[in-house]
Amino acid sequence: MAEFALIQQYFAGLSAPGGDVLLGVGDDCALLQPPPGRQLAMTMDTLIAGRHFLADVDPVSLGHKSLAVNLSDLAAMGAEPAWALLSISLPKIDHHWLQGFVRGFKTLAERFGVRLVGGDTCQGALSITVQLTGLVEADRAMLRSSAKPGDLVYVTGTLGDAALALQLLRAGKDPGELRERLEKPQPRITEGRALAAAGVRSCIDLSDGLVADLGHICQRSGCAARIHVERLPVSSRVRSHVQESGDLASVVAGGDDYELCFTLPASMQSLWESLPFETTCIGEIVPGKGVELLQEDGSSLPLPPAWEHFSS
Amino acid sequence: MAEFALIQQYFAGLSAPGGDVLLGVGDDCALLQPPPGRQLAMTMDTLIAGRHFLADVDPVSLGHKSLAVNLSDLAAMGAEPAWALLSISLPKIDHHWLQGFVRGFKTLAERFGVRLVGGDTCQGALSITVQLTGLVEADRAMLRSSAKPGDLVYVTGTLGDAALALQLLRAGKDPGELRERLEKPQPRITEGRALAAAGVRSCIDLSDGLVADLGHICQRSGCAARIHVERLPVSSRVRSHVQESGDLASVVAGGDDYELCFTLPASMQSLWESLPFETTCIGEIVPGKGVELLQEDGSSLPLPPAWEHFSS
Repeated sequence: MAEFALIQQYFAGLSAPGGDVLLGVGDDCALLQPPPGRQLAMTMDTLIAGRHFLADVDPVSLGHKSLAVNLSDLAAMGAEPAWALLSISLPKIDHHWLQGFVRGFKTLAERFGVRLVGGDTCQGALSITVQLTGLVEADRAMLRSSAKPGDLVYVTGTLGDAALALQLLRAGKDPGELRERLEKPQPRITEGRALAAAGVRSCIDLSDGLVADLGHICQRSGCAARIHVERLPVSSRVRSHVQESGDLASVVAGGDDYELCFTLPASMQSLWESLPFETTCIGEIVPGKGVELLQEDGSSLPLPPAWEHFSS
Repeated sequence: MAEFALIQQYFAGLSAPGGDVLLGVGDDCALLQPPPGRQLAMTMDTLIAGRHFLADVDPVSLGHKSLAVNLSDLAAMGAEPAWALLSISLPKIDHHWLQGFVRGFKTLAERFGVRLVGGDTCQGALSITVQLTGLVEADRAMLRSSAKPGDLVYVTGTLGDAALALQLLRAGKDPGELRERLEKPQPRITEGRALAAAGVRSCIDLSDGLVADLGHICQRSGCAARIHVERLPVSSRVRSHVQESGDLASVVAGGDDYELCFTLPASMQSLWESLPFETTCIGEIVPGKGVELLQEDGSSLPLPPAWEHFSS
């Protein structure tokens, strides 16, 4: 199997030079012109068959998701997407599969202005690595380390949809409209840009579940978080599931939602009412360590085990 | 297996913030400050066990090589190395293996001022992906597309050492000092920086062998190259092999040497004498298509089959 040339044909248009891409795919390196006054936000994620996705997953969804998880990291920093590199390892060339993969990747890339500037293709066990660079105004990036006691904690969207979809799929049931939430997560780029522009300083994306990811903010910021479980925003499907089963694990610890969790100091608490997208205040930052889940009667819920994505 | 935190301990020092690294490993993204007036050169390569290296290769060599092949791409552009992201997929955690891998990677990274700013670790078939970004002065990057008829063609170092080492290893023989050339190639960063600063405009690194890689320059520049095989620089070990076997394939088509091949217009042909490292003039760029191998008597050698790295 040759170099990236093999699938470059599929990506025509997405990898053309122009704007800040001085040179795209086809030389030893891509050559890029960073705009003055911006900082670079860089992330890279590998998705492995059987670990992060099922080997027979729809390739369109996989193309989407492999870019989406990286876009979500940029969203959490408040960065604007710019340039991607893509490495695909495939057991054999399958043009139908590749066309689907590219369609999923390309549709999402075009939506967020991502240019594909390099990468390679190898023969091997199915896995996908995407490296993504975004641009963010100086001193505007949202960090895990900037939360402070007194801040309120917010999330975008609803929680637990992806985890419930996975649970249903594993039980051989049809997850219906929840399947999209698992297989085609929507990175919150627009929301992240708006939050950073409004002065939000602390944010993370929910890939490993609320307790684990908010725990990263607490750990890096040297503080604790108290979450009021009755305030957690859920879809009607997840609400029914919780009412029937009494099991909150998918909501408080389910991964793969790719919503944003951010904190706001008291002085900015009128901001969330003016945001042009749905956010929910779910708790507060307090002195101490770790994440506490509080029920309406004031008692603590035990923390559920960590989210394990697709691992068996 | 957890996130990159797992091996972050091994990389302590290499991933600390400072200088243009505003934020290294540990948040959703790394945050970097590109220096004014510089362009970014970006490359990414995946190495897969059984394909690009033997699964039982010394991990120190693999750590070295996984960074070296990317550094070599920067060298070919004339860029100065800056930031790396590293994704490691491993069948199981093996601390001895990881320590070795990190030692090889870190030693080379420190030598060339590479900061490790992110990545991840997954469970899966052994493979390594490195994404590397370098910095290059505006309009100084050396491109594959800038060669012109009348240019002379040069290479650094010697050719065919890595290919002969692989051939000996496969035959169960000891390659001696050639093993280092295969397993620990030295990226020509210093040479690439000097060539770009001197005004060289066309360059490539020899990863797939002279004929294939010079062929890329010809294809992208719309011209042909004539190579005089008796001028090709070889080590004494390769010279003996060629004399005994009559087989020039390792020299003209052997990959993994990671030397630089560049072209110089007539107006700059005094340059190569002043360079503080060894280069050899091996031929010239002419009108036409493809690469021609000329023997001393003026007859053409047939082109050998393409280099296939470790594939079986």
